[in-house]
Amino acid sequence: MFDNTSSLAHFLPIIDWLKTYRQQDFTDDLFAGIITAILLVPQGIAYAILAGLPPQLGLYASILPPIMYALLGTSRTLSVGPVSVASIMIASALSSPAIVALGNPMQSALVLSLESGVIMLLMAVLRMGSLVNFISHPVLVGFTSGASLLIIGNQLPLTLGLKSPNCGIDVACYTSYIQGFNNTTLFISLSALALLLLFSQLLPMSLKKIGVKATLITAISKCGPLLTVLLATIAVSVLSTMGQSIAVVGVVPAGFPEFTLTGVTESLGQRGKALLPFAAFITLIAYIESVAIAKMTANLRGEKIIPSQELIGLGVANIAASLSGGMPVAGGLSRTMVNFSAGARTQMAMLIAAALLAVAVMFCSPWFTNIPKAALAVIILVAIMPLVKIKSIFHTWAYDKGDGIAELVTLLGVLIFGIEQGIMLGIILTIASNLRKSSHPHIAVVGRVPDTEHYRNIKRHHVQTWHHLLLIRIDENLTFANINYIEEFLVTELKRQTDTRHIVLIFTSVSDIDTTALEALESLNQALQSTGKTLNIAEAKGPVLDKLKKTDFFEQLKPGLAFFRTEDAVKQLG
Amino acid sequence: MFDNTSSLAHFLPIIDWLKTYRQQDFTDDLFAGIITAILLVPQGIAYAILAGLPPQLGLYASILPPIMYALLGTSRTLSVGPVSVASIMIASALSSPAIVALGNPMQSALVLSLESGVIMLLMAVLRMGSLVNFISHPVLVGFTSGASLLIIGNQLPLTLGLKSPNCGIDVACYTSYIQGFNNTTLFISLSALALLLLFSQLLPMSLKKIGVKATLITAISKCGPLLTVLLATIAVSVLSTMGQSIAVVGVVPAGFPEFTLTGVTESLGQRGKALLPFAAFITLIAYIESVAIAKMTANLRGEKIIPSQELIGLGVANIAASLSGGMPVAGGLSRTMVNFSAGARTQMAMLIAAALLAVAVMFCSPWFTNIPKAALAVIILVAIMPLVKIKSIFHTWAYDKGDGIAELVTLLGVLIFGIEQGIMLGIILTIASNLRKSSHPHIAVVGRVPDTEHYRNIKRHHVQTWHHLLLIRIDENLTFANINYIEEFLVTELKRQTDTRHIVLIFTSVSDIDTTALEALESLNQALQSTGKTLNIAEAKGPVLDKLKKTDFFEQLKPGLAFFRTEDAVKQLG
Repeated sequence: MFDNTSSLAHFLPIIDWLKTYRQQDFTDDLFAGIITAILLVPQGIAYAILAGLPPQLGLYASILPPIMYALLGTSRTLSVGPVSVASIMIASALSSPAIVALGNPMQSALVLSLESGVIMLLMAVLRMGSLVNFISHPVLVGFTSGASLLIIGNQLPLTLGLKSPNCGIDVACYTSYIQGFNNTTLFISLSALALLLLFSQLLPMSLKKIGVKATLITAISKCGPLLTVLLATIAVSVLSTMGQSIAVVGVVPAGFPEFTLTGVTESLGQRGKALLPFAAFITLIAYIESVAIAKMTANLRGEKIIPSQELIGLGVANIAASLSGGMPVAGGLSRTMVNFSAGARTQMAMLIAAALLAVAVMFCSPWFTNIPKAALAVIILVAIMPLVKIKSIFHTWAYDKGDGIAELVTLLGVLIFGIEQGIMLGIILTIASNLRKSSHPHIAVVGRVPDTEHYRNIKRHHVQTWHHLLLIRIDENLTFANINYIEEFLVTELKRQTDTRHIVLIFTSVSDIDTTALEALESLNQALQSTGKTLNIAEAKGPVLDKLKKTDFFEQLKPGLAFFRTEDAVKQLG
Repeated sequence: MFDNTSSLAHFLPIIDWLKTYRQQDFTDDLFAGIITAILLVPQGIAYAILAGLPPQLGLYASILPPIMYALLGTSRTLSVGPVSVASIMIASALSSPAIVALGNPMQSALVLSLESGVIMLLMAVLRMGSLVNFISHPVLVGFTSGASLLIIGNQLPLTLGLKSPNCGIDVACYTSYIQGFNNTTLFISLSALALLLLFSQLLPMSLKKIGVKATLITAISKCGPLLTVLLATIAVSVLSTMGQSIAVVGVVPAGFPEFTLTGVTESLGQRGKALLPFAAFITLIAYIESVAIAKMTANLRGEKIIPSQELIGLGVANIAASLSGGMPVAGGLSRTMVNFSAGARTQMAMLIAAALLAVAVMFCSPWFTNIPKAALAVIILVAIMPLVKIKSIFHTWAYDKGDGIAELVTLLGVLIFGIEQGIMLGIILTIASNLRKSSHPHIAVVGRVPDTEHYRNIKRHHVQTWHHLLLIRIDENLTFANINYIEEFLVTELKRQTDTRHIVLIFTSVSDIDTTALEALESLNQALQSTGKTLNIAEAKGPVLDKLKKTDFFEQLKPGLAFFRTEDAVKQLG
């Protein structure tokens, strides 16, 4: 039907793997899909509650969005749906005074999904995907750790049957607050924790010892969360007949909402404007985290992620979330790792998981009503713990102090000032560090390695130098950002070597000279000439020479010259 | 008295030149000081009016601030006082609704001076002076041109005896607006223009022809503005007896205001908070322009400017302005050039000018009352015209398109969105361009120049290559900002050269690898190993090797290796 499948595959990456899809792939994907679906149900409900939303918004977000991503995304194993860090960001947005004042948090969540999707598509169209390069890895890790700590602070009270504390920094208040915990809820939480640890740690080890097949072990161990939820729900039903009251999920409507395009667009305007900054931050983090996770699994199999196409896949997934009544989505780390380690070959696994979830939403929603929030909180806590990487700060610090500081400051920023302020702080730190770095280029005074035509740093090698000649190699393009630093360096060197008559700038690593740098060079040349010195350049590359020839720079330089090789300059001036 | 004069001179640069001050220097400075004072009187009054302030705020700003700068600044010829671009920025601040609502514009101006001074001192203490490197020259020129056009639009109505138009984009409105011009005012304006051009252009040429001494020519030509003001004032006095009404400066109080520390500090709080962003922009531009002007004249004489000390000099000058009832100050281009070309050797010239101005303020203020605003407007217009550099955009564009666009966009930003928005746009453009540049490092696939151990770009030179070996030279430090680009480059090259078995990254120009880049290299190595390729590095510098040795990077690399020279890598892998 389509002659040009490769061009079509460019728009629909799903075609890439469908072309070579085999029976064995399907068997693998079916297994992984079932396992992932088993995790998706409690995660979908739990993350919606974490975001301060009704549970169905998490479930709906786990159906259509992963289907759209399967068609358009380039990762074969990324599991798209509600994720923890985005959920706490949604909670932060929905609890900000301006948004609370607008009422109807569900509507706000749908607008956030829509805006996130549109922003991603815009970034794809404007080729702005590389903007995210400007969140460094340490800043991202610091941010994720901080957000995870906030999630822990948000979920811990639920495991004790308490509401969020309102104590500020009053320690005595916390003491009396914690004493109000609910015995029964704590019992359920501890049981849930024990069960989860049994399935994720103890059981796999024991099964491995007695020689059970690895895939079977995976299947069994991943059932932990569902079984926990199941048993906890039964426990609640029993306990409630005994007069115990435990916080539960509540009624989850059966079936699907109508497609709500008008619902969403109606509430744009003021609500859309108020939510836009939050949507921008959610988009940024959702995109960066998703691509990082997708790259990680792709690298393990030698597959390739195309970041610009990811913007399209994730963007359409978020718009689909909005239209099908779901909260914003991204690629989730724990779920993707489950999908990957359960042996998923392609996104077929996620298509199967989405189908199973649709069945669950249609037929099982009455069963969700009595799920205790405490059990879900424990599931979130267990999933989130690995994201708190305090030790990472020390590792980073040991390797690169600046990066370590950025990581720590971003983490503290999230905890002290809040989610959005924490990201902003991280972004500002990253840009500032980038500016600082690019304004301090590497510059070396060089001399000739004896009996060669090699010129090397005089600080590191025994080299030949000349009293009247200052050879300076600049290892970066000359721009407004670094030309002042270069000028200062030169002035300092001239003070040190006062009998210099000729300065030669070696341009081996210079690929561009911008307007500001050119003007600074011209005025530097003027200053040098007024004190009887000449400025020369050597080893300038073709494009640089072409650009300079458009100006009268070489006229101004005279009697200074442009040499092809440093050796030529030394022969003539040395 | 002081043993350690060099350390004292570090804090008081005035000592530097006082130590070697001679009779001849004083003669030169006296002459230049008188000439500059003659210009300072009309400029001080005119810039205060341009800023929307009473004239005395410009005069007071011309006395104590230049004295403080003379003590603390490092330029020997910079003339500190009210300047045109800062004045239009003050006007913009004072006319913003939030500031108008606070009333008492004089008080606001003093707070602006104080805040500018404090910001500069803070920048000095925090060593943040280099932050201004991040306004590129094209952006600064675009901004100055835009601000100058705004000044022209602000002053032209005064030359016609009109108030500012309120026509928006209604052309018909402008036509009828202009028809309301005042004949007498226009006559004064045109006469003033003729007189100024006569003194600045025609007279110097004629005098030169008949062999008059150059210093005398300078003295005569620089008297143009004062003579213009004098004649215009006499004309107004005569015309007013004939019943003609012409807008004049109005009463200028004689003598000095009391030192108003309490006045300023009382009105901090709400006013200070509202003015702070404006003060930040004024500080930024005042500092950048002052240092640029100071550097320009210093370069012409082989003197040296210390930017960090300039922050202190200008900062204290602004605080002095605030305490002595003056508007914010900076180094002025036209005045500094007058001072310089009149032969000023040191800041003694400005000390003399300040003393003369103090005398004028004490004894001559009644004479200022009848100065017509039209004549001052003409003086501003003549001074400002050279700052409008439309042609510069074309020059910049021809040399570097990106810089040309930045210059044009900043200019248009100032005209369309306003002064502060224009600067913000310029700053964002500069940072974005910097980010873009640093995320696209120069990378080359290299090969061996036959019969040598030199490795050069395969695109530019005829070099020897090997099928199984990919040699890649990266010409920049590896950071979060560029590591993705480097990765993409490598993947693209690997697709092109599919039988590659060994990749060698040549680190000649790499002086640092940050945490993000290290992690990306590790995951890249993992991906390459999974497809049976090895990653190697060559020519890594000492500091880079030291940093990498703190990690298990080299362990992970195996069987990939770190080679001392590219040649070694080729011998072993080629």
